[in-house]
Amino acid sequence: MFESAEVGHSISDREYDLAVPKLREALLNSQFNLLSNKTFPVVIVIGGVDGAGKGETVNILNEWMDPRHIITHAFGEMSDEEQERPRMWRYWRALPPKGHIGILFGAWHTDPIVQCVLGKIGKRQMELAMDQIVAFERMLVDEGALILKFWFHLSRKAQRKRLKALEANPKTRWRVTETDWQRFKLYDKFRKISEMALRQTSTGFAPWIVVEGTEPNYRYLTVGQTLLDAMQQRLSGKRPAVSRAAPLPEPAVDQRTVFSNLDYSQSLTRKNYSSQLEKHQGHLNLLTRDKKFRQRSLIVVFEGLDAGGKGGSIRRITAALDARHYQVIPIAAPTEEERAQPYLWRFWRHLPRQGRVTIFDRSWYGRVLVERVEKFCSEDDWMRAYHEINDFEEQLSDAGAIVIKFWLTITKAEQLKRFRERENTPFKNFKITPEDWRNRKKWDDYQCAACDMIERTSTDAAPWLVIPANDKYFARIQILKTLCDRTEAVL
Amino acid sequence: MFESAEVGHSISDREYDLAVPKLREALLNSQFNLLSNKTFPVVIVIGGVDGAGKGETVNILNEWMDPRHIITHAFGEMSDEEQERPRMWRYWRALPPKGHIGILFGAWHTDPIVQCVLGKIGKRQMELAMDQIVAFERMLVDEGALILKFWFHLSRKAQRKRLKALEANPKTRWRVTETDWQRFKLYDKFRKISEMALRQTSTGFAPWIVVEGTEPNYRYLTVGQTLLDAMQQRLSGKRPAVSRAAPLPEPAVDQRTVFSNLDYSQSLTRKNYSSQLEKHQGHLNLLTRDKKFRQRSLIVVFEGLDAGGKGGSIRRITAALDARHYQVIPIAAPTEEERAQPYLWRFWRHLPRQGRVTIFDRSWYGRVLVERVEKFCSEDDWMRAYHEINDFEEQLSDAGAIVIKFWLTITKAEQLKRFRERENTPFKNFKITPEDWRNRKKWDDYQCAACDMIERTSTDAAPWLVIPANDKYFARIQILKTLCDRTEAVL
Repeated sequence: MFESAEVGHSISDREYDLAVPKLREALLNSQFNLLSNKTFPVVIVIGGVDGAGKGETVNILNEWMDPRHIITHAFGEMSDEEQERPRMWRYWRALPPKGHIGILFGAWHTDPIVQCVLGKIGKRQMELAMDQIVAFERMLVDEGALILKFWFHLSRKAQRKRLKALEANPKTRWRVTETDWQRFKLYDKFRKISEMALRQTSTGFAPWIVVEGTEPNYRYLTVGQTLLDAMQQRLSGKRPAVSRAAPLPEPAVDQRTVFSNLDYSQSLTRKNYSSQLEKHQGHLNLLTRDKKFRQRSLIVVFEGLDAGGKGGSIRRITAALDARHYQVIPIAAPTEEERAQPYLWRFWRHLPRQGRVTIFDRSWYGRVLVERVEKFCSEDDWMRAYHEINDFEEQLSDAGAIVIKFWLTITKAEQLKRFRERENTPFKNFKITPEDWRNRKKWDDYQCAACDMIERTSTDAAPWLVIPANDKYFARIQILKTLCDRTEAVL
Repeated sequence: MFESAEVGHSISDREYDLAVPKLREALLNSQFNLLSNKTFPVVIVIGGVDGAGKGETVNILNEWMDPRHIITHAFGEMSDEEQERPRMWRYWRALPPKGHIGILFGAWHTDPIVQCVLGKIGKRQMELAMDQIVAFERMLVDEGALILKFWFHLSRKAQRKRLKALEANPKTRWRVTETDWQRFKLYDKFRKISEMALRQTSTGFAPWIVVEGTEPNYRYLTVGQTLLDAMQQRLSGKRPAVSRAAPLPEPAVDQRTVFSNLDYSQSLTRKNYSSQLEKHQGHLNLLTRDKKFRQRSLIVVFEGLDAGGKGGSIRRITAALDARHYQVIPIAAPTEEERAQPYLWRFWRHLPRQGRVTIFDRSWYGRVLVERVEKFCSEDDWMRAYHEINDFEEQLSDAGAIVIKFWLTITKAEQLKRFRERENTPFKNFKITPEDWRNRKKWDDYQCAACDMIERTSTDAAPWLVIPANDKYFARIQILKTLCDRTEAVL
């Protein structure tokens, strides 16, 4: 993989001086077009060997283009706020919005490679991390991002020479640290593991571009020209086709679904409800104050038909919690800043720290429910969402979050009754809108979308709990009980 | 101040049960109106004595209203990301957007009070902190926020009784910690200093409401009813008048301004420029790598006339820096999320961590320049901005940031020359728009606004440097030199 980056590439100063002015002008023009189009972001990932000129190249790109519209992020030690969320949270925070160029320095690849070289993680974990990265980059590309991944390479000999040269110069001496030499001793191991990482994450939609780092002119021109070509191609409208997800399975021949066998007649008396409510709320309160919960977080998702009783159920949960420790996030239309980012971005920004509870009133499942049924997004978009969501929830779970998802389902007759009731109660009538009636007409489409969703996204890490909710008392107790049971099982 | 909260207020259960359903319904309705109006946020500050029922009251408010549209924040230890910014950064992060209710638990008052009781800060520092809080709350009110500050009080005797009772009950025992008893020993000191703090921060626009914390029914009803009255009053359109800022001084009788004595003829030869550029860039680079800079940050503001040379000057600075350590923030129209927050919110969110450089290409001064001249905001709004900005910059400086502001000024003739040049250079013509020509017609208004701005916001902590920029070389060197000199002086 690195052979072609050890051939001694080089560009004479004369050639370089001739090429740069044109390249700069073209880059600036492309950057301006990108900014006025605002249809996609450019994500530049910088990785590679120490001393191969990564930092200088990033500086040159900032010099050549307008640095006001480039967002450069370097990833060092994690802050405590980052440590308490899934590994990818810090990268989500740093993604450039549409129209901008983001340079991510030592991004998502670096940490697993270093960890593996130092023996802190094994090959199996390394491979899992690479899979996660591929899924993440695929999502970015599917969302329209143009990704360019540059790997700066030096041969062993060239690296030693380079580090020595930097050390000899008083102006650059500060750049060579103890760590650099320690890492140099591990050169062969680094090379082997980096090669493995690059191979696994060099995909058709986001290939690695290996750049020989020895000679600056060559390095700068290669990166600049590659970036220019990629931007010009995308701006001219040639977007790489996104591969279609696998088709959905046909409905079962007997028309049975997860909903058809539910028993909607289950109910509780008011008295029974009150005593059970108190019991389970008390239990949940204790669980969230458990010492072990301080290393965990709880993420609860509510989805379901209109008038299914989401709001009431959420209030019965929050009543059991200390208001200092939870947030309820109601999901409505995305804001302007959210629309300029990949679909899942607006959920990542609300992830709780450890010891906290976040309840989503509607969620990332909007894409495979309302957006699918109302055709707000293309079939490709909602088809790939299943996979992206599973992946997202796995990351949450890996980071210690307890993820529980409730689907509140009622019969068509019960929904009608509740709509009428809302219309006739002054204090509830803001809860019923013409949209609710419109959605009701698409009852079957929503049922079908919900079935697919449950089938494709109910996982061990984040199961769906389907709650027959014709009787509110019964549903609320079911929900509280499930929350307690699952939380207790995990702690 | 606390006498009226030691009289043994209490409400019978019968009265309470009678009042609550109506109160809840009215609160829910107000909350819904607030949400659909989206014209102002409600900021509820909760402070007071341990064991006076602060937490329970917050929980009740979340239970009575729709918790999906309440954002509760509790402030404990600072995270490392918070520690590296001005003290108020964490509160800016937690402000509710328009239409929402934010409950801030142990907000900006708590820390100075505790620090003062423990003897970590003196009276003088305490008073400064209170002044800062008054300025902050005044800004919130001027921005339209409805602020309610509740202080929960207990007499010494009542607090001991309460702590004992909590301890005796197995269900609540966890809530009384060692710290609570340690603080109880300091009851008298706490009371005295709290009283001082409340007196200083109880203003006409954001008064404290002291609530006796002994008896729950009274406590809940008082807070609920006060909140309801305040929301209803505001929703009915009665907004407290914001006091007018003092009028601006008349222009000097001799018509002299900070600009009239500038020498625009200063210039540099290309050769002289190149050698000085290299020298100062090298120096700046060294300074930002200085060990002492790791406890500092550098915030550079660029303002000036169109075609004044801001972009080119910024590029000469960034060329001296490592791209991993700076951000350039171009300020354009605010986003939707930014419009739902106080004016300065969108600048607070970009403040650098320690060891970093942030360059603002246009800035918070937009309010007293373009917004003033184009009448995008009311006179009251831009008049109060001077004070808010000074206060903001003082906080930056107190937190260790080096704040430097450049005003690039050119003559009217030079601007015309540059506009023409931009129109005739294909690669520059995106930099000239009809708006630039429109702004040029208001030349005198902009000059006048700039003079006022410099007069009212050039402070020791954050001075304005007026740079005659007819000669680009001269201006850039001046800027770099000033940056180096000031940074060096501070380190």
